[in-house]
Amino acid sequence: MKLALAQINPTVGDFSGNTRKIIDFAKEAAGRGAELVLFPELAVCGYPPADFLEKDAFLLQAQRSVLEIATATKEISAAVLCGSVTPSPQAEGKRVHNTAVLMAHGRILMEQHKMLLPFYDVFDEQRYFEPAAGQQIFSLDGQPLAITICEDAWNDKEFWRSRRYQMDPIASLMQGAPDAAPLLVNISASPYWQGKRQLRAEMLSALAQRYRTTVALVNQVGGNDSLIFDGSSMVIGPDGQVIAQARSFAEDLMIVDTAASIPVPVDVAPAEEEIAATYDALVLGTRDYVRKCGFSKALVALSGGIDSALVAAIAVDALGKDNVMGIGMPSQYSSQGSVDDSRSLAEHLGIHYEVMPIRDIFERAMTALQPLFAGSPSGLAEENLQSRIRGVLMMALSNKFSSLVLTTGNKSEMSTGYCTLYGDMVGALAVIGDVFKTRVYQLSHYVNREREVIPTATLTKPPSAELRPDQKDTDSLPPYEVLDPILEAYVERYGSAEQIAFSQQLDIELVSSVLKLVERSEYKRQQAAPVLKVTRKSFGTGRRFPIAVKVQV
Amino acid sequence: MKLALAQINPTVGDFSGNTRKIIDFAKEAAGRGAELVLFPELAVCGYPPADFLEKDAFLLQAQRSVLEIATATKEISAAVLCGSVTPSPQAEGKRVHNTAVLMAHGRILMEQHKMLLPFYDVFDEQRYFEPAAGQQIFSLDGQPLAITICEDAWNDKEFWRSRRYQMDPIASLMQGAPDAAPLLVNISASPYWQGKRQLRAEMLSALAQRYRTTVALVNQVGGNDSLIFDGSSMVIGPDGQVIAQARSFAEDLMIVDTAASIPVPVDVAPAEEEIAATYDALVLGTRDYVRKCGFSKALVALSGGIDSALVAAIAVDALGKDNVMGIGMPSQYSSQGSVDDSRSLAEHLGIHYEVMPIRDIFERAMTALQPLFAGSPSGLAEENLQSRIRGVLMMALSNKFSSLVLTTGNKSEMSTGYCTLYGDMVGALAVIGDVFKTRVYQLSHYVNREREVIPTATLTKPPSAELRPDQKDTDSLPPYEVLDPILEAYVERYGSAEQIAFSQQLDIELVSSVLKLVERSEYKRQQAAPVLKVTRKSFGTGRRFPIAVKVQV
Repeated sequence: MKLALAQINPTVGDFSGNTRKIIDFAKEAAGRGAELVLFPELAVCGYPPADFLEKDAFLLQAQRSVLEIATATKEISAAVLCGSVTPSPQAEGKRVHNTAVLMAHGRILMEQHKMLLPFYDVFDEQRYFEPAAGQQIFSLDGQPLAITICEDAWNDKEFWRSRRYQMDPIASLMQGAPDAAPLLVNISASPYWQGKRQLRAEMLSALAQRYRTTVALVNQVGGNDSLIFDGSSMVIGPDGQVIAQARSFAEDLMIVDTAASIPVPVDVAPAEEEIAATYDALVLGTRDYVRKCGFSKALVALSGGIDSALVAAIAVDALGKDNVMGIGMPSQYSSQGSVDDSRSLAEHLGIHYEVMPIRDIFERAMTALQPLFAGSPSGLAEENLQSRIRGVLMMALSNKFSSLVLTTGNKSEMSTGYCTLYGDMVGALAVIGDVFKTRVYQLSHYVNREREVIPTATLTKPPSAELRPDQKDTDSLPPYEVLDPILEAYVERYGSAEQIAFSQQLDIELVSSVLKLVERSEYKRQQAAPVLKVTRKSFGTGRRFPIAVKVQV
Repeated sequence: MKLALAQINPTVGDFSGNTRKIIDFAKEAAGRGAELVLFPELAVCGYPPADFLEKDAFLLQAQRSVLEIATATKEISAAVLCGSVTPSPQAEGKRVHNTAVLMAHGRILMEQHKMLLPFYDVFDEQRYFEPAAGQQIFSLDGQPLAITICEDAWNDKEFWRSRRYQMDPIASLMQGAPDAAPLLVNISASPYWQGKRQLRAEMLSALAQRYRTTVALVNQVGGNDSLIFDGSSMVIGPDGQVIAQARSFAEDLMIVDTAASIPVPVDVAPAEEEIAATYDALVLGTRDYVRKCGFSKALVALSGGIDSALVAAIAVDALGKDNVMGIGMPSQYSSQGSVDDSRSLAEHLGIHYEVMPIRDIFERAMTALQPLFAGSPSGLAEENLQSRIRGVLMMALSNKFSSLVLTTGNKSEMSTGYCTLYGDMVGALAVIGDVFKTRVYQLSHYVNREREVIPTATLTKPPSAELRPDQKDTDSLPPYEVLDPILEAYVERYGSAEQIAFSQQLDIELVSSVLKLVERSEYKRQQAAPVLKVTRKSFGTGRRFPIAVKVQV
C-alpha cells in the first residue's frame, strides 16, 4: 500500500488554518500516488487543546472541520485518516472522544476512539475524554488496518518493565485480526524530550517484530506553549527495521510504499548525546511560541553571561537576526568585560544591541526606599532591586516595540531559586528553563561548532550574577558539575536526600541544603514564563507541587 | 452511636504536625465520650498533596504516620477513622490509593479505598490514585458503617441531572448492606465556593432520606494555596434534617449522638447571598497561605481605590493590624483624593502607612529609555512603567522586611487583562482574584457594616487606574454592571458570544470585544500569583488554557 505520512504543524484552535492545511497536504499526497494519508492525533484542533475541549463552540468547530475534510475527499483520490475530537453518545462520563476519523469519497468510513488516555506528567487526557468502548480492524480496499492513537501503542507488556494500564489495545486488535496481519497505524501527538525519539523507534520496532507487520506512526510537529512536538514520523517493516523516517522539528510529507523494505539510516541518539536535537527543539519551540502568539520580534537582556548568549543564538535561528534585539543594562557591579562580551556576541549574531545603564534608576529607587531602609545592611533586597529594574526596562521596550521578551534563566537556577522573580524571570517564554547549566555549556559549544558566535570569554569566565562586588555563583551554590546531578536526581527523578547522597557519594548535608533550596523556591516557578520542555520532567504543567507546605527533605 | 467529627486544618506535608493534631483531637474526643472519631480525607498528609504523591519518601512518611496513630489508639477509648494515602499492591496502574483507615486498640481494623476519583476543575485524582476494587460494610462494635470518601457520595442518579461516573458507590454499598441501615460516613476534603455549602447539605439530605439512614460528613478546614476548605462538617438524620453542623472556616471538634434527632438551624445560603461566607473564606485563605508559607506579615499597595482597600481589610482580619503595612506610591497622575483616602483607610484599620512617590524613579527610567523611545507618543509602555516601578518597590520592601506582598487585582481585571504583569500583579497571593468588581463593592459594604472602615469616597468615586490624566476604567471597559455578567458567563460557564449576547440582550460586537480581551490575556494569568478560589470556576489550576492559540470568539 502506498501510504502518506502528513507531519503537519497545526495551531491550537485555528480550525480554518488547520483544515486548509490538512486538505492541501492530502491533495499533494494523492497527487504523488498515495492511497491513504495519515494525519496526527487531534490534527483538526491542534494538540493539546486543554480546557477548550470543555467549550461547546470549540467542539462544534471540530465537527464542522471534519465534515469539510470529508467533503473535500470527494475530489481526492486517497483516503484520509485524521485525528479530531468527537462527541460521546453516552449520558454518563466525559462528553467527548479523542478519535481517528477515516474519510474517503466524500464520506466518513469509520471512527476509532482512543482507548488509553494518558494522565501523568503533562498529560491530562482523562480530564476530557471518554475512552473507546471497543476497537475493530477496518479493511480499506482490501488492506486491513489496525488503527490506534498515540498512547494506545505504549503499553506492550514485553517492552515495558511496568505498565500504566491493564489492557493493551494493540494486543487486543491483533488477536481479533484476520489471517493477514493488518497494517498497524498510529496517529500521535508525542512531545519531544531528550531520548524520546530513540525510545519511540525501539518500541515501534518491538511491536513490528512481535506482530510481524508494518507499523506506521505519524506524529505532530511544532511548538505549542511548553511542548515541542518533534515529528520524526516513521514506518517500520515486519523485521523491525525503519524503512522511512520523516524530518525532525519540521513539517514533512513522506510517501512510503509499505511493500518496500530497504532500511534507512535512523536519526536518533541516546539522551545524553542529543545536543543538536535539543538545540533544534529549542529553536522550533521559540519560533512557534512567538509566531503563534502573533508576534515576530524578540528581546533578550544580554548580561555577558552564557545563558543570555545561548538564548540570543537560539532566538536568531528561530526568528532571524533582524527580529532580535539585545539589551545590555550594566550596573555599578557589572564588569567592563561583560559589556564587551555582550557587544561581541551581538556583532557575531548580527543583531541590534542597545545599552541602558541602570545606575541612576537604582539610586533613585534607593532614595525612595531610604526612609524605610535606613540603617539596614545592603543585601538581597538591593541585589534583587537591580534585577527588577532591568525587568521593568525590558517590559517597557516590549510594550513599545511589540516584541516578546525571552527569559534567560536555566534549569539549575530555576531549581534552586537562584533567579529574581519579576527581575531576570520577566518574559514571555523561558527558552532554556529546562536546560541545566552544564548542558547550557554543551549547547553553547554546539553553537560555536563552526565559528565563534558566543565569545570565548563568555564560555570561560566563572558564572556570576554580578549583583554585588566580585560575586560568583559558587558563593551561594556548589559548582555546577556537583549541583546539576543532584538537581537532576531530585527534580526529575524524585530521589530522596539519602538516595542521592548515597548514589552520588556526597555529603548528606550538602545534598539536603540543595533540596531545601528547591522546595523553598516553588513560588517563583509558579509565576515563571512557560518553560520549553526538553527533558522527561520539566517545570510547568507536568510538575505540580503546592507552595504553602511543610516538607522534610 | 456517639460520633466525633474532628474538623482539622492540616498542612500539606507536615506529617509530624498533622499526626500530633490527629492524636490530640482523638484523645479529646474520646475524653468527651466519643466511640468513633472521624478525620478528613488524606488528613495525615493534607489535601491536596499533588505530585508529592509521586515521591517514595512522602508515601513512606504517610505509612509511618498511620502506624503512629494506630499505635496511639491503644491509649484511646474511641476508634479513629482517618484519611491517608496507602500503597496499591497491583503491578499495573497507579501506585497508591486514597484511603480511609479505621483504627482501634492499637491496630488497623480495615481500609476502604476511594472509588470515584475526580478529574475535573481543580481535581487531578486520577493522576495519582488507583480506584478501589470494591467496598464493604464494616461492623464496629455492632454498628454497621458504610465508609466513603468525598467524591464517592457525589454521584447519586436521582440527585444529579447528569452524572460524571457510571457507578454509584453509595448505592452499591447500601444494596449489599444487612437489614439495619448502616451509618453512612463520608470523609472529605471538599473546597469552598459560593453556594457549595448549600449544595452539599441538599445532596446529603437527599442521600439520608433515600437510604433512611444517618449521614455524617467530616470536611477538612483551612487554606492550602488556592483552595479554601470550609469545614462545615455535618450530621443529617434519616428524615433529611441536619442534626449537627460544625463551624465554617475554623477548626472544630463536634460530638454527636446519632440517636438524637433534633434539627439545628443550618448556616448555609444561596451563592448570591454568600457575602459573609466569601469574606470569611478570603480571610482564612489569606491567613493560612501566609502562615503555611512561614511568614506572618503582609504588605498591601494602597491606591486609594476599592480593591486595595478591601484587600487591606481582609489582611488585617487575617493577620492582625500590627502585621499589615500599607504603601502609597503616588505618581503625577494620582489625585490628592487617592492619597488622602489611603491614609484614612490606614487610620481606620490601625495599620502602618508609608508613602513613597514614584515620580523621580519614573523620570529616570524614561531618561534611560529616551534613546529608544524618542519620538514615539506616550502610551501603554509609559502607563505600565509606573505600575511596574510600584511592583519593584513593593518587592524591595518584601525582601527587606520578610513580608509577603498581597496583590489587589480583582476577577474583572484578571479576566480582561486590565492589570499590569510584573506591576500591580506582583505578589505572593491574589486575594480577590476570584471576585468580580461588582462583588468587590458588596464585600466592601460588608466590611463597613458596623462602621466606616473603607472611606466613603473610595466606595463612591468612579474606578480609575490613575496611570494617565483623568483616566477612568470605563475608557477601556464597559461599566462593571454590564461587564461582570458577560465575564461570568464566559469565564465561569464557557458560554459563546452568541449565547451571551442573546441571553443578556447585548450587542454581539460588545460581547465579542470583551471575550477577545479574555483570550488575549491568558499569558498574564499564567504568571499570576495563586488566586484564592471562591467561585465554581476560578483562574488557576482548575482552568487550563494554552496561550499560543488562534481561537474564534
